[in-house]
Order: sequence, then structure tokens, then C-alpha cells
Amino acid sequence: MKYMTMNRFKIHSKYENEYPGIWDESYKNIDSVQGLVDFKLLKLDKELDGDIVVFASCSVWESKEAFEAWKISENYKEMHKSIPLNKHMYAEHPIMEAFEVVLG
Amino acid sequence: MKYMTMNRFKIHSKYENEYPGIWDESYKNIDSVQGLVDFKLLKLDKELDGDIVVFASCSVWESKEAFEAWKISENYKEMHKSIPLNKHMYAEHPIMEAFEVVLG
Repeated sequence: MKYMTMNRFKIHSKYENEYPGIWDESYKNIDSVQGLVDFKLLKLDKELDGDIVVFASCSVWESKEAFEAWKISENYKEMHKSIPLNKHMYAEHPIMEAFEVVLG
Repeated sequence: MKYMTMNRFKIHSKYENEYPGIWDESYKNIDSVQGLVDFKLLKLDKELDGDIVVFASCSVWESKEAFEAWKISENYKEMHKSIPLNKHMYAEHPIMEAFEVVLG
């Protein structure tokens, strides 16, 4: 059964245009992620009060096991090493959700 | 720019196994939806307190315009006509979110 993970990022709106760029490097290397079927970076289409824009990464995996294997892989470490450099863009900690794919 | 809509459904847990079945008919006719690129029915992989299971439909569209055209189409009416029959399964009104696809 396929598995979908969705991570939400609350970003200070002054970084709205700059933020997708920090995903470019990972996106170029997306084929190196074993068990990943599809990846999208999304932006919530909604005006929020104040200073926040919501982005979300949406990853479809071959299985829950494939996702869990990636979480403890070298590839995961490599892909997350630049996070400290971009910390100032984040208004809050990311919020992760995971779903079983029932149809589709 | 592609567009993704996500609709969350809080379902009484006693209908957990039965609920995906109400999507079968729509899913069979998914190719009749103009501008729809991908569709998934998801189930949140998380134990919630109490009586609720969260399902979500996840639809990728060619564009925001394609989604908005579908919302006022005959196809939309046809696909939603069975909702009153299944009302007892829903613990709350659905919650809709929409996203621009920035990458992917």
C-alpha cells in the first residue's frame, strides 16, 4: 500500500518568493531517494492574517516501510543538512502528517 | 501552474471499512473529470482519541481554472448526488484546502 507524507512549513511572508529556492537542490536529486514515487512542493492558496505563508511538501512513497527506511538513511541526512542555514525563514516547527493511500 | 485540492472527512470509526466503498463509483468514472491529473483517497495514519477516523481526498488539477470549471459542471453535480445517502457516516462537515503546485 502506498503512503503519503505531508509536511507543513509556516514561513515568514517576506521569504515567500525565496523559500521554494531552498528546495531546488533536493528536487534535482529526487531520483536518489529510494522508494519515493512522487514529490510536490505546495503553497496554500489562502490569505492568512499577518505575516505567514504556508508551504507544504507532499511525498508519495511505495510503502510506509520505504518512508521509514529513508528517515534513517544517509540520503535523509544529506538532504536535511542545509536546514540550519534557513532557520530564519520558519515561523514555527514543521507539522508532519502521514496517510495510507486507500485509492489511487 | 498545477493546483491541488484536499478535502478532509471526519468519519465515525464504525464506518472505517465501509467508507472507501462510497468512492468506488466516482473513482471508476475519474477519467470523465476534465482537467483532473491525479486523484487519491487517503486515510490519516494516526490514532485519534475517540470515535473518529480521518479520510482525505487529494486531487491534482491542470490548473486552478480547471478545478473551478469542474465545481460548476454537471459532472460535479453527478458525482455529489449520493452524498445525502452517506450523511450518517460523517461526524463533521468536510474541510477543504487548496494549494498551488510550486514544484513537481
